[in-house]
Amino acid sequence: MLSKAEVVARYLPETLQVKPSAEAFAPSNIALCKYWGKRDNALNLPVNSSLSISLGHLGTHTRLALSDSGEDKVLLNGKEQALDSPFAAKAIAFWDLFRRDQILPIEINTTNNIPTAAGLASSASGFAALTKAINEFANLNLPIDVLSAFARMGSGSACRSLFDGFVEWEMGQLEDGMDSHGIALEASWPDLRVGLVKVETGEKAVDSRSGMKRTVETAHLYQSWPMQAAMDIQKLRQAIADKDIDALGMTAEHNAMSMHATMIASWPPLLYWQPASVAVMQNVWGLREQGVSVYLTMDAGPNIKLLFEADQEAAIKAVFNDMEVVAPFAS
Amino acid sequence: MLSKAEVVARYLPETLQVKPSAEAFAPSNIALCKYWGKRDNALNLPVNSSLSISLGHLGTHTRLALSDSGEDKVLLNGKEQALDSPFAAKAIAFWDLFRRDQILPIEINTTNNIPTAAGLASSASGFAALTKAINEFANLNLPIDVLSAFARMGSGSACRSLFDGFVEWEMGQLEDGMDSHGIALEASWPDLRVGLVKVETGEKAVDSRSGMKRTVETAHLYQSWPMQAAMDIQKLRQAIADKDIDALGMTAEHNAMSMHATMIASWPPLLYWQPASVAVMQNVWGLREQGVSVYLTMDAGPNIKLLFEADQEAAIKAVFNDMEVVAPFAS
Repeated sequence: MLSKAEVVARYLPETLQVKPSAEAFAPSNIALCKYWGKRDNALNLPVNSSLSISLGHLGTHTRLALSDSGEDKVLLNGKEQALDSPFAAKAIAFWDLFRRDQILPIEINTTNNIPTAAGLASSASGFAALTKAINEFANLNLPIDVLSAFARMGSGSACRSLFDGFVEWEMGQLEDGMDSHGIALEASWPDLRVGLVKVETGEKAVDSRSGMKRTVETAHLYQSWPMQAAMDIQKLRQAIADKDIDALGMTAEHNAMSMHATMIASWPPLLYWQPASVAVMQNVWGLREQGVSVYLTMDAGPNIKLLFEADQEAAIKAVFNDMEVVAPFAS
Repeated sequence: MLSKAEVVARYLPETLQVKPSAEAFAPSNIALCKYWGKRDNALNLPVNSSLSISLGHLGTHTRLALSDSGEDKVLLNGKEQALDSPFAAKAIAFWDLFRRDQILPIEINTTNNIPTAAGLASSASGFAALTKAINEFANLNLPIDVLSAFARMGSGSACRSLFDGFVEWEMGQLEDGMDSHGIALEASWPDLRVGLVKVETGEKAVDSRSGMKRTVETAHLYQSWPMQAAMDIQKLRQAIADKDIDALGMTAEHNAMSMHATMIASWPPLLYWQPASVAVMQNVWGLREQGVSVYLTMDAGPNIKLLFEADQEAAIKAVFNDMEVVAPFAS
């Protein structure tokens, strides 16, 4: 078992030469075939390949600079974060993989432009932007595949946020995981839309790292998941090639519901759904019964994301007034 | 593939000699390891063995008599049913297996004493009571194993309602299914309680026969279900022997959630839960976090059944005021 530090070190010069500052942006992404289960917990190597769509201009902007004060400093959306907060601790630990024992105090300034109402996780775009910014800041000039693999070590799905449009994360085979990274699919689908429907929750959810672990360890039904994911990726590739929204949506919804099924079959049961999540699902299925071509997907949280084409937007907005709509391929 | 009529005929005399009337009672049952998936659709032969608890005096009473009018007549809770209604049609079709081409017009008078608020299915106790009543009415004197196998051909889980207490339905191996019937476990557990929590629904649900079929045909995750069910039965047998409510409850809840997971992983998704079902689950898990020993199980519907021992009843009733409590082993 290799450590992240050992893997990253192979790609670094003896001594980092840093710029005064550097910045980068990375988009959020929504998985159409989910990443659920790790085969290596240290390196975030997945049990199955996954496939996502990046959300264009929605994501994370990160600026890095040498810290004037000589102390590390982390800002999130303009607010300084305690260094022992989970957010700051993870970001600094990631930078530690690169600076090693050099004295390189850093200021990490992260801004998410994901609408608060969207209920989207920001760790994927966050680690992707941080990785890109480090590549600039430390003059690493590493190829994007390597950066994607590095981002994966921060947060698995971050490896997909290095790219725009449809992205496949190949699970890979190598022990060091350097073949486990995102690959952009050559495809554009200007009419595709992603709708973000927020479901309120007061409860603190089980984080997805713990959720995956519990599922893999306790859900008998999880045994069938890797094979389903492999088949779903094939179907999604074909649906994307055909620009077939029903094939895409059906596969994505079936995949997401199956992932949640593996959680529900865990012990103790892992249910990210709120009562309101079920109400949203019922509304989506009701729209489909009326002939509206709309499908849902969900991640490790109560919020629901919808997949549809531009011509269905009005009918869907009539039911989901507060829905935020993203056009991933809009220029 | 054998038909029901072929199987039943082997156990019948050339000509039935019927009494003027006969009656029988059979209890409802709640599965702790669920029956989900058929290996033979005609005979209701299951993919997996299952295990249930019968609900004592809650169930179905059925009285049979030769019909004065010379026409078949079906009453449910005192009300005459149209002969082409699903209820009457199924009951008459079952009697047809026995009377064959004899002229034996029947009056079937069925009364359920299951509280309406309980949201319990009545097909299991209904076919069990009907089978027992036919055995009396036609002087068949068949052993209970055979009657249980006959009841199974009416509705799968009915084979468990021939017995009181804990009942195992052995899946069996024979082509004619005559080894696929209930067997009573020698066990008493006076402190065991079953709580019935009703969740309102306006929607007509998918019937469990269609639900099973959809799951077996479309849910990849279903592949792992038979093995889980087999393991859960072993655990339940041990929990019953030990009178260990936590082992019993944990296994039953995990089994029920896993069955629902296979439905959720079907296409299109099969979700029997209402928003209020999720709220009840969250309340049950909240009680457990407070140290109350209570577990849930659910069938193909939105209602929730709770498993606990008598000493926890007050704490649970404080949260679920309307809960109906059954003591399966109360004398």
